[in-house]
Amino acid sequence: MTGPELERLIQLLGRLPGLGPRSARRAVLDLMKKREQLLLPLSEALREAADKVVTCATCGNLDTIDPCTICSDERRDPRTLVVVEDVGDLWALERAGATKGRYHVLGGVLSALDGVGPDDLSVAGLVRRVQAGGVGEVILAMNATVEGQTTAHYVADRLSGLGCSVTRLAHGVPVGGELDYLDDGTLVAALKSRRSL
Amino acid sequence: MTGPELERLIQLLGRLPGLGPRSARRAVLDLMKKREQLLLPLSEALREAADKVVTCATCGNLDTIDPCTICSDERRDPRTLVVVEDVGDLWALERAGATKGRYHVLGGVLSALDGVGPDDLSVAGLVRRVQAGGVGEVILAMNATVEGQTTAHYVADRLSGLGCSVTRLAHGVPVGGELDYLDDGTLVAALKSRRSL
Repeated sequence: MTGPELERLIQLLGRLPGLGPRSARRAVLDLMKKREQLLLPLSEALREAADKVVTCATCGNLDTIDPCTICSDERRDPRTLVVVEDVGDLWALERAGATKGRYHVLGGVLSALDGVGPDDLSVAGLVRRVQAGGVGEVILAMNATVEGQTTAHYVADRLSGLGCSVTRLAHGVPVGGELDYLDDGTLVAALKSRRSL
Repeated sequence: MTGPELERLIQLLGRLPGLGPRSARRAVLDLMKKREQLLLPLSEALREAADKVVTCATCGNLDTIDPCTICSDERRDPRTLVVVEDVGDLWALERAGATKGRYHVLGGVLSALDGVGPDDLSVAGLVRRVQAGGVGEVILAMNATVEGQTTAHYVADRLSGLGCSVTRLAHGVPVGGELDYLDDGTLVAALKSRRSL
């Protein structure tokens, strides 16, 4: 009853993470109300992103240039490589201004369940970057999940003997966190990695 | 750090109802991964909707033709008009196959807070449709909210004396609902409107 155009739009929007069929319908109605301010600009922005945004062949970041802004920025320390699972994690670290190093996006984590093996991730590319020389430290910034940590150990194994130090993010109490609300794993990790004041 | 194209896309997507900045970022990353299957088709579908979908001048429904499919469907009963707040409500009633009548979309509800007066809704259009004759019953299918019911009373007032009967949806226990979880207002309404078996 909504016509094939709107049905298709609802169906496509409903495939975005965070939007189900019901919220996709709400979004479409909202879009139709804001035709000039939202619908057309959104269509345009999607097309522009499809046309212009490419994956950096060096690090795997998304940008309009290749190598990306970060890889081609002379002020970024080329001796530090921060390895992340996904571009979203890279964005999170950049938002925090957490590092002046460069990145390497693996493109996922090892997962036997989902059939993701080492060849599906850009581990070989990372090894090549380290072998090319000039990298002093590789910081493994994977998520603190089972898959993330498995992947971190695998990557560390692959990098051993290449002459760079390999580190991982600290695990502990998140800043602003309350002990009472934390899980046992975090508490044990925080206690084990305690620092002298 | 994400480049102006992606920033703009995130910002536009984040304005959709149900998507905040964080889920918009996730959606954009997902879109970039599914360029051919999702990103380009979505851009295309948005443009097509903008080009083709119009508001029905008779009832206010969204469709590619004007008068819309429902208004021009000879099998729909022209003697029954179901008045709804929004196109989303029309879609909900159509999904349920609840009526064989035609619709009239008000385009909102009266709200002093939001500065929505009678002239901002298509009440005059509804009155004209009834005055044109051939309408036996107007069913007010507004939401059972304070604004919805205020609007229903206002519309009923405007329609009085035009020679059609004006009804409203029943209020009561929703089908499948449990008394223990219902609010007082619904329980009182359900008891007051009890039916003999």
